Amino acid sequence: MSTIDTYDDFLGHVRRLTNVGNVEEMLSWDQQVMMPAGGQPARSKQQSTLSSLEHELLTDDALAAYLDDAEGDDLDPEQEAVVREIRRKQRRAVRVSNDLVEDISETTSNALATWEDAKAESDFDAFAPTLERLVELKREYARQIDPDRDPYEVLFEEYEPYLGIDTTEQILERLRDELVPLIEEIEASDVDLAQPFDGTYEETAQEELNRAVLDSLGYDWDRGRLDTSSHPFTLGTQFDCRITTRFDESDPLDALSSTIHEFGHATYNLGLPKEDYGTPLGQDRDLAVHESQSRLWENHVGRSQAFWDLIWPHVQEHLGVDGDARAGFEAANQIYPDNRIRVEADELTYHMHIILRFEIERDLIRGDLDVEDVPEVWNDKMESYLGVRPENDAEGCLQDIHWSHGYFGYFPTYSLGSVLAAQLYATAESALDGLEGQIREGDFDPLHDWLTEQVYQHGQRYTTPELIRKATGEAFTADYFVDYVETKFGDLYEL
Amino acid sequence: MSTIDTYDDFLGHVRRLTNVGNVEEMLSWDQQVMMPAGGQPARSKQQSTLSSLEHELLTDDALAAYLDDAEGDDLDPEQEAVVREIRRKQRRAVRVSNDLVEDISETTSNALATWEDAKAESDFDAFAPTLERLVELKREYARQIDPDRDPYEVLFEEYEPYLGIDTTEQILERLRDELVPLIEEIEASDVDLAQPFDGTYEETAQEELNRAVLDSLGYDWDRGRLDTSSHPFTLGTQFDCRITTRFDESDPLDALSSTIHEFGHATYNLGLPKEDYGTPLGQDRDLAVHESQSRLWENHVGRSQAFWDLIWPHVQEHLGVDGDARAGFEAANQIYPDNRIRVEADELTYHMHIILRFEIERDLIRGDLDVEDVPEVWNDKMESYLGVRPENDAEGCLQDIHWSHGYFGYFPTYSLGSVLAAQLYATAESALDGLEGQIREGDFDPLHDWLTEQVYQHGQRYTTPELIRKATGEAFTADYFVDYVETKFGDLYEL
Repeated sequence: MSTIDTYDDFLGHVRRLTNVGNVEEMLSWDQQVMMPAGGQPARSKQQSTLSSLEHELLTDDALAAYLDDAEGDDLDPEQEAVVREIRRKQRRAVRVSNDLVEDISETTSNALATWEDAKAESDFDAFAPTLERLVELKREYARQIDPDRDPYEVLFEEYEPYLGIDTTEQILERLRDELVPLIEEIEASDVDLAQPFDGTYEETAQEELNRAVLDSLGYDWDRGRLDTSSHPFTLGTQFDCRITTRFDESDPLDALSSTIHEFGHATYNLGLPKEDYGTPLGQDRDLAVHESQSRLWENHVGRSQAFWDLIWPHVQEHLGVDGDARAGFEAANQIYPDNRIRVEADELTYHMHIILRFEIERDLIRGDLDVEDVPEVWNDKMESYLGVRPENDAEGCLQDIHWSHGYFGYFPTYSLGSVLAAQLYATAESALDGLEGQIREGDFDPLHDWLTEQVYQHGQRYTTPELIRKATGEAFTADYFVDYVETKFGDLYEL
Repeated sequence: MSTIDTYDDFLGHVRRLTNVGNVEEMLSWDQQVMMPAGGQPARSKQQSTLSSLEHELLTDDALAAYLDDAEGDDLDPEQEAVVREIRRKQRRAVRVSNDLVEDISETTSNALATWEDAKAESDFDAFAPTLERLVELKREYARQIDPDRDPYEVLFEEYEPYLGIDTTEQILERLRDELVPLIEEIEASDVDLAQPFDGTYEETAQEELNRAVLDSLGYDWDRGRLDTSSHPFTLGTQFDCRITTRFDESDPLDALSSTIHEFGHATYNLGLPKEDYGTPLGQDRDLAVHESQSRLWENHVGRSQAFWDLIWPHVQEHLGVDGDARAGFEAANQIYPDNRIRVEADELTYHMHIILRFEIERDLIRGDLDVEDVPEVWNDKMESYLGVRPENDAEGCLQDIHWSHGYFGYFPTYSLGSVLAAQLYATAESALDGLEGQIREGDFDPLHDWLTEQVYQHGQRYTTPELIRKATGEAFTADYFVDYVETKFGDLYEL
């Protein structure tokens, strides 16, 4: 189709590839936020055309030939980074057969409806054959990419290519070992945190509050939007990055924490270098780093006493709540160990939901667990980690959509993001003089500038471990996260 | 890149081409309705990638080879239609050199800013060199497509491929000869039509009215949306066709007529056959037929006494207007010959604005008029057709954006659409028993079903003249339009 002779030709090809991918994201945003329901049949066909064009661009022979040559060339560090990132994606794409891609695509698109029905009926047996098939297909997918490596690690690298499964397992084991006793202590505490949000709060009032909070945080409305969707998400580039939230009239903290979380994702994308739009240097560094930004803003900023001091006048104005900023801060930090649903979990118990999913999906893919045993293992782990047992599979192993999409290896990135957020935030606290006071004053520029300098501006120039070491001076570690939760919840629950 | 051996391969290729085009339209909708302003740089690059991919699909050697063979094959009528339409587009695309396409693209993208500045300063001389260059480039474009034919006709066929420039010229000359004296008579009439809309009408109230009117007309909200944009437009397919309008607080008729106009465009697209999505059989039959549907609903339905009887309770409810439905009907049919601006023109004088543009652009492209003479010729024609002379070029020959986009041959389709609307509507009146009464009752199903059967369901199966003959039993003619305006305005102005 084309020849790629020079680095500039190569960049042109990469930019086309990126543009097609960004358009696919835009269509997905439209589908979830704006599209009338009847538009789905045409939209599916449009998405399918774009993803096959993207696949053709990535598996183009001319691209392969250029990459083969370029790896011996004398490239500067930025060029090397671009070649490294494109080679990684290209290698995965060319190794997987078209038949398998189609098989996975067809199986997952049918799996969604099967999962929905099974969840509605709380009937795991109805989903089990589909899950069995998905596990087989994804193992084969990993095998085609690299037959000599742990298939779970190969799948995990789709979402987090550089941290490595060993580091990930160590981090998650550490969290499990530290958090289980901490959660038990909290449960045994007789401290009652304040609950000032006990009324009904209209959607329009909540939306005004969320917009005011985004104003305070410095969201750039000239490059963004806030809309609603059934699941909050963020999509876009450094030129146009949009967030969504959702409103529950009985729980204004739900929208507020979602909005701040999505702001974190968006502010990362909006901080990517504009001049590198269209190449890996202008793209985010995968899911663990992305989630670190959403968690940093949601938890370290948005669940701090200083932040609640800042926004309390807005909360009172829009929601008419009694009490003081301390009450808001306490409400935002309630721990509910008896909750069985991941997406409703608090900042702390959330990780137990992730760890049990990680352990189960890893063992499924490695062949160490049979599909039929998933419900019991799930419920046992839940009981062991959180002291509660799901009453049925709908609130147990059928609760999440991810496996029906074929996403195995995705869950761990949520916890890795929180752990990295704590490490980055602790470094920022040392680097910046009086960060807490700045937050209380609504002066987010120093934190934003620090994150831009340390993380956002680099795009994919560095691998994840390199980026972490450059930003924090250390290897990736859970020390700061453990310290953060022990201090915060120790104080709150008087442990 | 690919081989196209069978008709099914060919259809698969055509569907990809259509999907890419539909995605480009979706991005354009987003850009005009939803995109934050800062998103433009990335959006331009995304659009450019998609249009180059579309061009590559259309000029693919495998497609050319298939079309060469297929034209000798034994195809059924539907297959023949698909081959005919793709061949027509493909032939134009392969004949034009990439250099020229790039030159036109670069010149038009710079032309926009030059035109905006020139219009703001009312300084034609500032735009003249750009217009000169655009005329040259578009003449060369026509020459590359077909050096042996009238270049204006070749350009016109981009928007209306089958009606032919001779027919078009005859129709427009007939309109000019019939409408100029009619407009003079109206000007001389001492009838004063009612003007009940003399207040200020809030945007929210107007929006409710427009939504109520769309409900009455039967707009399918499950496949559509109403939003606002600086210029009203319609974009989409049979699965998802969205309209926009705009609100002027001092003139609620502006939004109302725009909304009904766009409803007409949308109802055509929504009536295209779903099973043919992605091929010419599932696409609209170009601009003249499209405009006939917007004008039919806007004017023949939306400016009728019966329609005003139907919607008057809504108008009173949302706008709180005094008077009766007759007053609304009269207000919707006011003629303003002293207006100099096309987009603000009434149903009748509108065509004089089109005819003068057509005559000027045709002569420019044919080399019968020099760019430097455009302002004077424009003003002379305006005076001759409407009895008014623009006071400056901003309200004269600089008022429209079209030429700065390189659109030469587009303007005539507006008038052709009105003429065809009258012919189709007259046929529908004969075919349906009591159409006026149905409109008064809000029963639009018979008209909608008739249009679906005669026009919408055929997509591009027939050429425009074939479609007109099948629907009306006659060749394309201005008789019905002339009769319609003479009757309606003769009655209103007591001529």
